[in-house]
Amino acid sequence: METQAVAQALTPSARALYGPGPSNVAPSVVDVMTRSMHSHLDPDFHTVLTELVDMLRAVYRQEHGLVIPASFPGTSGMEAGLMSLVDPGETVVVATSGFFGDRIVQAAQRYGANVVEVRADHGDIVPNDQILDAVRRHPDTRLVGVVHAETSTGARHPVAELGAALRDHDAFLFVDCVTSLGGIELSPEEWGIDYAYSCSQKCLGAPPGMSPIAISERALEHARTKRVRPPYSFDLAELARYYVDRPVTYHHTVPVLQLYALHEALRLVLEEGLENRWQRHAEAGGYLQGQLRERGLHLLTDPDYQLPQLTAVRVPDGTDGAAVRQRLLREHGIEVGGPLGAGGPSIWRIGLMGVNATTASADHVLSAFDAVLDTAAASGR
Amino acid sequence: METQAVAQALTPSARALYGPGPSNVAPSVVDVMTRSMHSHLDPDFHTVLTELVDMLRAVYRQEHGLVIPASFPGTSGMEAGLMSLVDPGETVVVATSGFFGDRIVQAAQRYGANVVEVRADHGDIVPNDQILDAVRRHPDTRLVGVVHAETSTGARHPVAELGAALRDHDAFLFVDCVTSLGGIELSPEEWGIDYAYSCSQKCLGAPPGMSPIAISERALEHARTKRVRPPYSFDLAELARYYVDRPVTYHHTVPVLQLYALHEALRLVLEEGLENRWQRHAEAGGYLQGQLRERGLHLLTDPDYQLPQLTAVRVPDGTDGAAVRQRLLREHGIEVGGPLGAGGPSIWRIGLMGVNATTASADHVLSAFDAVLDTAAASGR
Repeated sequence: METQAVAQALTPSARALYGPGPSNVAPSVVDVMTRSMHSHLDPDFHTVLTELVDMLRAVYRQEHGLVIPASFPGTSGMEAGLMSLVDPGETVVVATSGFFGDRIVQAAQRYGANVVEVRADHGDIVPNDQILDAVRRHPDTRLVGVVHAETSTGARHPVAELGAALRDHDAFLFVDCVTSLGGIELSPEEWGIDYAYSCSQKCLGAPPGMSPIAISERALEHARTKRVRPPYSFDLAELARYYVDRPVTYHHTVPVLQLYALHEALRLVLEEGLENRWQRHAEAGGYLQGQLRERGLHLLTDPDYQLPQLTAVRVPDGTDGAAVRQRLLREHGIEVGGPLGAGGPSIWRIGLMGVNATTASADHVLSAFDAVLDTAAASGR
Repeated sequence: METQAVAQALTPSARALYGPGPSNVAPSVVDVMTRSMHSHLDPDFHTVLTELVDMLRAVYRQEHGLVIPASFPGTSGMEAGLMSLVDPGETVVVATSGFFGDRIVQAAQRYGANVVEVRADHGDIVPNDQILDAVRRHPDTRLVGVVHAETSTGARHPVAELGAALRDHDAFLFVDCVTSLGGIELSPEEWGIDYAYSCSQKCLGAPPGMSPIAISERALEHARTKRVRPPYSFDLAELARYYVDRPVTYHHTVPVLQLYALHEALRLVLEEGLENRWQRHAEAGGYLQGQLRERGLHLLTDPDYQLPQLTAVRVPDGTDGAAVRQRLLREHGIEVGGPLGAGGPSIWRIGLMGVNATTASADHVLSAFDAVLDTAAASGR
């Protein structure tokens, strides 16, 4: 068994990652992972962590509360937040019009919360009024969950307005920022978000594996004192003792090389400037979307709520969406996404995130689509 | 805030990682992380995952049940196992004589299990008879937890014997293999282990960030059907649908570059051969321990249970253990570990793991200790 199982060394083909993430990583972000690896308890590495947390605060524009680069996927960032802020049996209101809103619903149900769903169709957004109505009907609501940038549809929820409307309510505002952080305007503290979770591998431009989290002071205080404790891995107060408090208290062994990469990626974000970066994402996405419409293709999402960094395109009738994606991959080395989950509309998802948020990348993916769709049409499909 | 926070690019100093992990990483393991990054849903990457799981099965010597390289730390591997196999209120028997045994106790208590502790002093092991007595006194025991290689003390628990004694009992045998996998003999299937969790960054020689897990068929069946569901992030049946089942079902975005690194690290383990690798760890550790004793230093653990890959050395009376570690780091670029947690004995922890399991590395750390302890003695400390 042992000898037979030895695989060949990896030689992965080149990929332009124009799907919903991960996006391609800048050369300096890759390079920093080849530097001398320190341990998670090395005093020099704690300086790195301190810098990293400071940069993450700047990217989240959050001065108070807690900001950490948690070493687990965004889905765990979501569950750590639910389990840290809610007790089983408490009421949470969740707005969903896509796969990742549904995921909040399912995770909260699995945990034993009393979940009030407010739904809209894929590609739409749930109107804030409907969310507020649900909160009014359930005055004991502990948490209101919503997705800022729905990765399955490319729709942007107006979170600033929701935060303003909930300002005087005790419920915590809990927001999936997985596809928004670094790509579009996001200001948790200013907007009244109590718990924001994101990922490393989309608009921030680091490899996948980390979940940057920002927690308000009042949410952190509740997490420290509430009745039911979350798993130790998900305990924000314990994580703070490692990532933020000095001297460090050991919590777990963090992914040191990934944190080097995130440190470098955040450096690049701040060197560019957050508002410049949002502008770059807006221009690249706007250009792509205009070109797609010119080709007669239809976008899933209402233009008023269309994200620039992620565009869901309806697969034309009679076209095999999966076959097109396969040809983009095999003939052009380009990844674009397909539909996520069962029951959603037939779409392609094109992401221009991080280093790929340029009109050059837009032209690259457009010309590949042109080539593949032309041939597909010529062959009568 | 934004401009002020931009840190300098990282230039970490060289480190010989002779602590309890992470260990240094082979050049080819670093190099593979610089290759073209694929997405978690790329069909070519699924081939990589399939190879990786096959190699991990060979390293765990496990043919049946489920083996996955979970993308979270070992502590989460532990909690995923507890929450997948136990319901709150059920009885678990935990043997502990160190920090990581205590961590199982605490995690199980936090989760709401009825925890029966069986304790021994740090550096000792809990006799299997006492564990079996506890199981007999609690015939409803759902799970028996033990640490194969206690990272805080360097002691090896005789797990094969415990597994044989529990063979006819319904309780699941749950084993922390964080510091054992790849460094000493471990055969979960042959020994009757139902749930083994490890890490990537010790004897396997990959960077930190992953928790290889091996689950027996009967434990997996129980995990699929038991009453209380674990968090989605920790749901082994759901994780299997991504890592093992084909075609893939999306679960979360895995840390692709880390999995490249683990693929390469497992390749190196199997190319060397498991038994050769254990032998290399045994020789390097045995040599180090002999040399330490020759210098009049005392090891914490009984020689009968001393791990080769991790050696806990008692700090001599009158010596400032932390100051010595600081000088090893600053004057020699060498990391060794200190005591873990409050209340334990004053020790240094020296690890010779992965690429560092050589007599050359042993000589390197010994000569640095000699230099520092000589000066410390000369200066009257």
